[in-house]
Amino acid sequence: MTKRLTISVDAMGGDDAPEMVVAGMELARQRLPHVDFLLFGDREKVEPLLASYPSLQKRCEFRHTDEMVLNEDKVAVALRNKRQSSMRLAINAVKDGEAAGVVSAGNTGALMAMAKFVLKTLPGIERPAIATVLPTISGQTVMLDLGANVDCDGDNLVQFAIMGEVFATNVLGLEKPRIGILNIGEEELKGNEAVQQASTMLQEIDLPIHFHGFVEGDGIGAGTVDVVVTDGFTGNVALKTAEGTAKMLGHFLKEALTGTLLGKLGALIAGPALNAFKERVDPRRYNGAMFLGLNGICVKSHGGTDALGFANAIGVAAELVSRGINEGIKRDMEKFVHNPHEEQAAEA
Amino acid sequence: MTKRLTISVDAMGGDDAPEMVVAGMELARQRLPHVDFLLFGDREKVEPLLASYPSLQKRCEFRHTDEMVLNEDKVAVALRNKRQSSMRLAINAVKDGEAAGVVSAGNTGALMAMAKFVLKTLPGIERPAIATVLPTISGQTVMLDLGANVDCDGDNLVQFAIMGEVFATNVLGLEKPRIGILNIGEEELKGNEAVQQASTMLQEIDLPIHFHGFVEGDGIGAGTVDVVVTDGFTGNVALKTAEGTAKMLGHFLKEALTGTLLGKLGALIAGPALNAFKERVDPRRYNGAMFLGLNGICVKSHGGTDALGFANAIGVAAELVSRGINEGIKRDMEKFVHNPHEEQAAEA
Repeated sequence: MTKRLTISVDAMGGDDAPEMVVAGMELARQRLPHVDFLLFGDREKVEPLLASYPSLQKRCEFRHTDEMVLNEDKVAVALRNKRQSSMRLAINAVKDGEAAGVVSAGNTGALMAMAKFVLKTLPGIERPAIATVLPTISGQTVMLDLGANVDCDGDNLVQFAIMGEVFATNVLGLEKPRIGILNIGEEELKGNEAVQQASTMLQEIDLPIHFHGFVEGDGIGAGTVDVVVTDGFTGNVALKTAEGTAKMLGHFLKEALTGTLLGKLGALIAGPALNAFKERVDPRRYNGAMFLGLNGICVKSHGGTDALGFANAIGVAAELVSRGINEGIKRDMEKFVHNPHEEQAAEA
Repeated sequence: MTKRLTISVDAMGGDDAPEMVVAGMELARQRLPHVDFLLFGDREKVEPLLASYPSLQKRCEFRHTDEMVLNEDKVAVALRNKRQSSMRLAINAVKDGEAAGVVSAGNTGALMAMAKFVLKTLPGIERPAIATVLPTISGQTVMLDLGANVDCDGDNLVQFAIMGEVFATNVLGLEKPRIGILNIGEEELKGNEAVQQASTMLQEIDLPIHFHGFVEGDGIGAGTVDVVVTDGFTGNVALKTAEGTAKMLGHFLKEALTGTLLGKLGALIAGPALNAFKERVDPRRYNGAMFLGLNGICVKSHGGTDALGFANAIGVAAELVSRGINEGIKRDMEKFVHNPHEEQAAEA
């Protein structure tokens, strides 16, 4: 039996909040019988929605607040002035031990800043990273950082690699995950200083990983490695480029199949097969970006998602808690800092 | 009538060279009646191939050399020791005025280093950039740099923007191309120092462009802008991520359509429509990476391409010559350096 746990939820974040949020919680309730909820938001908007899901209401404690973080809020302003916002209160619940993790579909920058301020980072982690699971030809891969850190040095990248390794081991269930650093060539001499430094350190690291070396952009979709490590600038551009390419190809395919009579007829007959294809790459399946490296579980849902996508993000948070991701990161960071190579590096 | 011009070709570069190269030249000969060829390579291998295309032979001067650049050659070694290689001689022909442009499917790093050494950069251009045309939902876009420059400052990015603008105007025929800088958000304050600097300079530039501002990775496929400007690290990762995503989706689609009987039947009936889709995103259509900013036209074909792809790369080189890309870059760089804003920046 899975241990019961509570997820705190920001009812007010996301384009279609709070309707989408509450409907997503109802889906998650059905899928995850071991999860209870602590929900923060505007009483007038949220309570009528909750009332339509009596089974959810039994597993959800609701707390009212007038304040909410807007998408257009500057990060610093949200951090300073929105201490009673649904987002902030949902994060506080994790800090206070009332919830094991938090999910929000609101302003990404504000969520990261608040979560970092309230929860702090895990020992040895200088900066948290945003991570997500992506589909590949051979299965799936986890990529980080996706935008929390524009400039990264070698140490940051190594810390991301360790967090990715723990995710791949604890959550994806891999024994010795293959780690790759995103670069513009696979040769050892390519790339900038940060990737060079990180590569040197990872070659000698005393952890149960297989360091593959450098991986190029097309290695992401090919599934060359289980963990793709990169700085937040490159990772964000790569993730969004992949999304944009998928959207463009979907558009072209639809145009081709609706442009001619035979195309339409073929698409009709191949309907179930095409739907299986669509489902396989449905972005909602991969919704739920993980803020790794914080002393508490925090998951960001895409703001434009629907109930199904939000339910998946809740599932990601519950999984991170159940699989003990943070205990794993703490343990491996401890091993890492007691690694003789690293001590030498620290002395130098 | 288009003016006659000569393209020099490295017969020995590419996975299937020289067969693929000569077959590609034959295709290009048929398509481009105004183009003559100057071909460099190993007599024993190339002459028998040429003999099978009598019409090509009439428009092609062949020159023998034993030496060739290998894919595994280090850039510095190729530059120092391979002065009689087919690649180097083909570049020399441009420098000496025997050819208007050069095409090679060989070692990218060696080609860039040799071309830079032999041809030098255009006035005002500090570093050449690799550019390519990519398909978008609404048409096409040109992206640069794709890997020549790992670290770029604001000035480099502005020079790339100007080269991209000239390409979009002269070759794509746009009146006032929309220029975007690749970033991790569209807000003005996002990103690293280089993109911030470049954005400030481009906002005040006195050239016939429309500076759109920042564009995210998904803006590439969406066709948000006509020119996507980025550093070589990010651009290379973005390009290869897009290629990898397309390959993965193609794989998934094929699996779906061959996995069930109805899928197969539907695909059979929609065959012509699916073929039109495939053709639209055929990477061979977009083959031919342009080295912009050199004092001479140089185009790099994908090493793994076939005759059709190589013919397209020759087409790109011929187009860059005919449309006077370098005259355009010279003219706009001159305007740019006489721009009062830039003079202030230079003094500061």
